[in-house]
This record gives sequence, structure tokens and C-alpha cells, in this order.
Amino acid sequence: VDADTLAQRVFEGDKRATARAISLVEDGAPGLTSLMRALHPRTGGSYSIGVTGAPGAGKSTLTERLVTRARSEGHSVGVLAIDPTSPFSGGALLGDRVRMQNHATDPGVFIRSMATRGHLGGLSLAAPEAVRVLEASGAEIVIIETVGVGQAEVDITDACDSTIVVVTPGWGDAVQAAKAGLMEIADTFVVNKADREGTRDTVRQLQAMLDMSDAQWRPEIIAAVAIRNEGVEDLWRAIEKHRAYQEEKGLLPERRRGRVRRELADIVQERYRHRLFAEAGDLLERLTGEVCDLDLDPYEAAARLTAALAPSG
Amino acid sequence: VDADTLAQRVFEGDKRATARAISLVEDGAPGLTSLMRALHPRTGGSYSIGVTGAPGAGKSTLTERLVTRARSEGHSVGVLAIDPTSPFSGGALLGDRVRMQNHATDPGVFIRSMATRGHLGGLSLAAPEAVRVLEASGAEIVIIETVGVGQAEVDITDACDSTIVVVTPGWGDAVQAAKAGLMEIADTFVVNKADREGTRDTVRQLQAMLDMSDAQWRPEIIAAVAIRNEGVEDLWRAIEKHRAYQEEKGLLPERRRGRVRRELADIVQERYRHRLFAEAGDLLERLTGEVCDLDLDPYEAAARLTAALAPSG
Repeated sequence: VDADTLAQRVFEGDKRATARAISLVEDGAPGLTSLMRALHPRTGGSYSIGVTGAPGAGKSTLTERLVTRARSEGHSVGVLAIDPTSPFSGGALLGDRVRMQNHATDPGVFIRSMATRGHLGGLSLAAPEAVRVLEASGAEIVIIETVGVGQAEVDITDACDSTIVVVTPGWGDAVQAAKAGLMEIADTFVVNKADREGTRDTVRQLQAMLDMSDAQWRPEIIAAVAIRNEGVEDLWRAIEKHRAYQEEKGLLPERRRGRVRRELADIVQERYRHRLFAEAGDLLERLTGEVCDLDLDPYEAAARLTAALAPSG
Repeated sequence: VDADTLAQRVFEGDKRATARAISLVEDGAPGLTSLMRALHPRTGGSYSIGVTGAPGAGKSTLTERLVTRARSEGHSVGVLAIDPTSPFSGGALLGDRVRMQNHATDPGVFIRSMATRGHLGGLSLAAPEAVRVLEASGAEIVIIETVGVGQAEVDITDACDSTIVVVTPGWGDAVQAAKAGLMEIADTFVVNKADREGTRDTVRQLQAMLDMSDAQWRPEIIAAVAIRNEGVEDLWRAIEKHRAYQEEKGLLPERRRGRVRRELADIVQERYRHRLFAEAGDLLERLTGEVCDLDLDPYEAAARLTAALAPSG
């Protein structure tokens, strides 16, 4: 299938075509450029929500609840679950995504786990491209959920229109969230599994941290028990309130512009990384050996590699 | 202070100079290149241990215990705690590092939290450079501990000579570890807080996952209560066993070579990213606007940006 035909099927909301397109993104396949080009005119139309937090915090359950809530308003929804590839799993370990199968027959919902190690640009480049595929397929709400909670995951969810940080009382406390860099990116906090002890302490600690901030937007803190669907309505309203705030203040265009700027820089640097291995692979091997032997420092090695790359144009 | 003078002080094990050098790495300061060049001849001499796992798993406590254990053998130790920068914290939230102060007056221990958003290359480039600084200052054992557990953190700890993955019974279960991509990188597992219920289940699940692997090295699973110093001796022995295994099989040179190869590629691509903003900043802004307006697709924009960068050499 050529790029234009595949794009046409994505535009029609064909789920198999959409899945195929996301696979191409995942693999960083050679045909990706022409596909992204063909899809581009129909992108940019979604409101994207990032969901991050430590493994085990209940992000998948919460995401599933948000899908249900969004569907109740008639929005078409795309979900992207970012999973690292493991040679043990082969994608088979997504057991807790099974409950997502509730939505499998709903034409207004598309759910996809995405592994990322194939794409040369990694998470940071694959995620916005996959979002574009979902937008082109008609998604009005896109939810990006990450498995881990590290810098890359934080960057991705922070690049959404609205970022939800999920913590649990059992996770430790709000200090852990702050240490992991989550205070600065949260537009809304969820204290999930709020039927456990320690919930009030965690909420209080988050409040205290937010008191120290001088940011314009003060995130709401929602106590939830996602598995029992408690707090989901509150969360949905908090998301809508943040959206209204951003629209009222005219903040969304700049937020999206920053995202595109970063993406272009990511693509440019990945092109050069690709050229390095393709055009100067032998030199890279030789210089790697010299650095290991302490005959050469890494910056001098990098300068020689840069010089060896033929002028582009 | 010029690079050679600073390097000389680092070689002498001067802690203030070492801290200063790591600050330069953190900031991606202009003088970094000449410093790394000056330090290079004395690098490469440590055995590095990565410690990763979800926030709240007790990595800091475990790291502190490992420092004490390493010191009991007379090894000089450098610790690098990777913390994202938060505008809320300004580095002040490192409360649980206080217990590291036990080692503050020990000339054989250097401990440093490192924030990473200043360095253009982020975590993946700053970490190996900071390790070199520690090696140049005489560290025989380097421990790198991350706060989060995402792809970047996994990549960093995986780039050490030996990787310890810390899970807790309360974290959920071993499936979460697998989902977060931790099964494939662990050389040793620690089930910390093993006085809690669910420890045996977690150990069993990890064993079952490892049974599915066909890797040559089978990670040991150590039950520990780091805060009471239980299991630390077992962990130390597991680390030594893995080291002996790698040395016997001659695996370390290739592991380190892969690390340097990746670092050189990282430096090269960061140089181009830097040049993009420095030499084509206006074009980047204009094309970003065109992509936002759907007049241009990201790959075409990237191609134009690449063409605009003057030939290097």
C-alpha cells in the first residue's frame, strides 16, 4: 500500500489502517516520511491529555475511565499507551490493557500500545507522530499514557495540551513526585487508590508544594478510586476547567508551537545521527576504539566525526 | 580557573574541584570541552553500578548501604544521584540524601546530586561525563542512582557495568517491572522493603519471568530491608558475582565500547541541534509557524533546516 492510499484509509477512520500507520511510526520505517506528509493536512485537530505517574499507580484504569467519560459526550477518542519494548514481553505483557477491550467494538475509540525502541528518535519523536496519525483518523481527544515515570515520559506527557499526574498514597508521598520532576508539569493531580490510608497526608503535601509555586495555573488535586469509578467525574471536570482556562487566556497556540519547535529540532538531530551511522560508521568504530583506549577524548572524536559527514543540502 | 588547573585538582581528589567540574557538566558550560579533554587520560578506571526502580522503592537508602559496604573494602566511591530539576525544588528537596551525610567527612566518598535540564544533551550525555569526572577524581566504584524509572533512566543505568533494579512488594508486582522495561536490563534484582507482605509473590513472579528468558546471565533476586541493613551483604556478593562473571567471560570491554559508541553519536547529534538554534533559529521559527498552520509537514521542514545548516568541517 502506498502512502497516499494508507493515508486515505486513515482519514476514513479505518482502524486497521490506523494501526498499520502507527506500526510504521514505531519502526521508524522508510516510508514514514511520505506517510506523515500525506497525513499532515488533517492533523492538529485534537485536544491531547497526558497521563503519567509511577508504575502501579493505576494509570491504565484511569485512562480507561476517561475514555468512557469522553465517549459519553460523543467525542471520538484515541489512546496511545507508551510501553518500552522488552524481549521478554514481545508486547504480550499488556494484560491490564485487557479491560480496554470494553471499547474494542466501539468505532469511536482507537487504542494502541506503542513500543518505541525501533524508532531512531525514540519516544520523543514517535509520540507526536503517532498523535498525528490518531488526529488524521478523526480522534478529537487523544490520551497518551506512559508506563514509566522518567525524564522522557515527563517530556512526552508535558507536550500534551493537559497533563495529569497520578500518585498514590502507597507510592510514598508528594516529595517523591517532586523529586521525579512531576510538580512542574502537572496541570491536574490525581491521588488514586484514595481508599487507602495516607490519602489525606498526600493531598496535604501536594497542596503545600503547590503553595510554594508562583505559576499562574494552580492544579486541582482530585482524590479518586479509578477501579470503582470514583472521582472520575471530578477529574473530567478538572480537565475541562484547565482546557477552558487555556482557551480563555489564549495559551494553547504557544504550547503547541513549542511542541512543534522541539519536534523539528528532534527530527533534524536524528537525521544527522542516521547519517553518522550510514556515512561514517567505520570511522565511528575506529574512534570509539581510540576513546576506549584513552588515545582520544570524546569531544575531539565527535569533532572528527562531524567533519567527516559530507555537507548536506 | 582554567581547565588544566581544574583537572589537576580533580586528579588530586579535591572535592570542591570535583563538584565544580560536575556543575560544568550539569550546565553544559562552554568550558566543558576543554575540561573533558584534560580529564580524559585518567578516566575509565571505575566499576560502575546503576540503581533504578520506581520512586519510593528505597533506592537512596540502598545506595547509601552500598557505599558503606564498598568503603569497608577500602574502595573509594563516587555517587551520582540523577534528579530532574524542578522550579519548586532548586535542589533543596533532596531531604532523603541527608543520610548520605554520614559519608560527608570521608575523603574516600564523593556524593553528588545532578540535575540535568541544563545540559543540551540531557541525561544520556551528562551522566557518562559526570562518571568520567568521578573516575578522574579517583573513584574505583561509581554508583548512579536515578529518581524516576523511564526510558532515559533505564538507558543510563543500563549503560553501567552492572545494573540493579529495585522493586517493592507494595509497588504492585513483577509485571509492572516488566512493563517498565526493567526485566531486560537487570543484572541483579532487589525486592526491597521485604518485611512487607507480598514479598514472596513478587520474588516468585520475578523468577517466573526470568524462567522465560534465554539470556546467558540469570540475575539473582535479593530480598532486602535496606533501612535495617538486611540483605545488603547478599546484594554486595551478587554484584561481585556478576562482576566476576563478566570478567571471566571477557564481556566488559564490549559493554564499555557500546557505551562510548552511543556517547559519541549523542555528542554529534547534540552539536547539530546546537547549530540549528544558533545558525538557523529564525528559519526554525518561521517553519514552526508553517507546520502549525498545516502549510508544511514536519519532514519537509526538517529537510529545509538541514539544508540551511552550513557545511561543517
